[in-house]
Amino acid sequence: MFLQAKIPLMALSLILSAQVAPAQEDLRALALDIFSPLPSTLPAVANNPLTPDKIALGKALFFDPRISASGVFSCNSCHNLATGGDDNLETSIGHGWQKGPRNAPTVLNAVFNGAQFWDGRAPDLAAQAKGPVQAGVEMANTPENVVATLKSMPQYQDWFRASFPKETDPVTFDNFARAIEAYEATLLTPSPFDAWLNGDDAALNDQQVAGLQLFIDSGCAACHSGINLGGQEYYPFGLIEKPGAEVLPEGDKGRFAVTETVDDEYVFRAAPLRNIAVTAPYFHSGKVWDLKVAVEIMASSQLGTDLTVEEAEGIVAFLGSLTGTLPEVVYPVLPAETAATPRPSGEISVE
Amino acid sequence: MFLQAKIPLMALSLILSAQVAPAQEDLRALALDIFSPLPSTLPAVANNPLTPDKIALGKALFFDPRISASGVFSCNSCHNLATGGDDNLETSIGHGWQKGPRNAPTVLNAVFNGAQFWDGRAPDLAAQAKGPVQAGVEMANTPENVVATLKSMPQYQDWFRASFPKETDPVTFDNFARAIEAYEATLLTPSPFDAWLNGDDAALNDQQVAGLQLFIDSGCAACHSGINLGGQEYYPFGLIEKPGAEVLPEGDKGRFAVTETVDDEYVFRAAPLRNIAVTAPYFHSGKVWDLKVAVEIMASSQLGTDLTVEEAEGIVAFLGSLTGTLPEVVYPVLPAETAATPRPSGEISVE
Repeated sequence: MFLQAKIPLMALSLILSAQVAPAQEDLRALALDIFSPLPSTLPAVANNPLTPDKIALGKALFFDPRISASGVFSCNSCHNLATGGDDNLETSIGHGWQKGPRNAPTVLNAVFNGAQFWDGRAPDLAAQAKGPVQAGVEMANTPENVVATLKSMPQYQDWFRASFPKETDPVTFDNFARAIEAYEATLLTPSPFDAWLNGDDAALNDQQVAGLQLFIDSGCAACHSGINLGGQEYYPFGLIEKPGAEVLPEGDKGRFAVTETVDDEYVFRAAPLRNIAVTAPYFHSGKVWDLKVAVEIMASSQLGTDLTVEEAEGIVAFLGSLTGTLPEVVYPVLPAETAATPRPSGEISVE
Repeated sequence: MFLQAKIPLMALSLILSAQVAPAQEDLRALALDIFSPLPSTLPAVANNPLTPDKIALGKALFFDPRISASGVFSCNSCHNLATGGDDNLETSIGHGWQKGPRNAPTVLNAVFNGAQFWDGRAPDLAAQAKGPVQAGVEMANTPENVVATLKSMPQYQDWFRASFPKETDPVTFDNFARAIEAYEATLLTPSPFDAWLNGDDAALNDQQVAGLQLFIDSGCAACHSGINLGGQEYYPFGLIEKPGAEVLPEGDKGRFAVTETVDDEYVFRAAPLRNIAVTAPYFHSGKVWDLKVAVEIMASSQLGTDLTVEEAEGIVAFLGSLTGTLPEVVYPVLPAETAATPRPSGEISVE
């Protein structure tokens, strides 16, 4: 009865959507040459097979503030799964109330980036995870203290053993990072744009379709392509016209710090654009809060194009279709400290 | 088939438990005069009827760091549901890396406390919720800025309307606090001790039963009684013998600051003991990390008793039976900021 009622309704809806939105097969074929929808399964991660145990351990570690020296910050502090996988700050505030040098990128779908950090200095999420833990302005911890902290709690020892069953001493800083990588590889957010790429014309409205067309035609997609619409290659910020020092501070030369090649001055990884509408502020400097302004800056600085208001709004509308849905996250219950757990310290060491 | 197999097994298990643990009816009757098990339903909260909408809104607010001036701290930062509802720090670190004056108490089951804070200065959780938001060393925000932040996000406006349907302007600081109170009233953690109070002899082991008996006989239960084993009445810390200044710093005179009555110098609310084993460090000063040491200090300072090692361990074992299980918490997805959302500021104002 229900089934019988449903089929005509669905057919009707298909007919209606075919009437209001013309077939978008040409644009879809073009888009599928440039972009890819998120897969329906978890990705394979190099040298790090995903298992349910490892993912669960990684989730606990991701949410555990005791991996910071002070006991205040977890991965989730700056990559908050409640707010688009970032912290909505210009640059993050860390240990000792110090400000980080660059805007925290979203962790969502980050497994599909070609490399991690704005300058791509970490080849993968496991390498990335080790950075903030040790950075003096972020968690200010040491690998030794992280391992001592985890080893002090029998439940964590059990979880590491289950996650790395072939290892005799599984509680290591490397495995800590691998487990976090495994969990982060599950943080995928299918979006209306994926539904559209997969054939659902109704997933984007007319303005978003026009915005997508313009995103491709005007050249944005030259850098912002692939599964994450960016996150793969490196480009100078200000290819055609350098933005002001407010947006592109002179002191941060981007990938130059990694390669020490003059050509890499002010070169950054093209920002991945999934969930961009919910992860303001923008750019490595975090200086721009309005997505439309960010789009306009990109158009002028990278493409030498002055967008009309309507064009900029169309692209922003399209970018809104990249806001996806995270799988339900059950907040973990973490092991309790023991007498052997190193004490948190908020002290700021003078270096 | 399964059912048939199950019944004999259950019967066998009952016979076995009856053999190893003698009937504990006398102790249970005594305990039920002093303590109460957690109820199986949510409590009624004065002037704040609990509804699913209000609870969901309160959960979002509880986890939202944008209610702090800096955008760094949420309620969950210091009352972390992953770690026993507190932050495992001596005293919390807040805005500008300032240290709070007292150890953060657990939010779990806090709805059953007679009043909130170590000195009981807030009559209920709604009043409590307003404190840290405005405290300069915690979130350093203002009610006006909180309301402006929440009003800037249409999703929050919808949620407030659904939660307070009779009000024309529901997004207020009072309703913000009421919603948080509603959510916190759901954070109940039934424990083995509740199962034992409810009649399950097997829920406590012999050492825990002996520890409970001693907890009552030696006088602990005189202050640590009721549903939360404390959290109701006020007592001088150091009734018989003042602990050292390391544990009881001279500058913090406790409830005296609330009542300005000399009798209330160094008077504090008896700490509620549910989940005490997972919420180190202890006392308002947070100076004691070992629960056994805390128990010994209490015995000598409040009761004039020197416990034997076996006695102290028995009480600690009993206290372990107060560690409960939180209902599954699905991490919320929060509304995204808009152009109207006040910007976070980590600046420290000089007062």
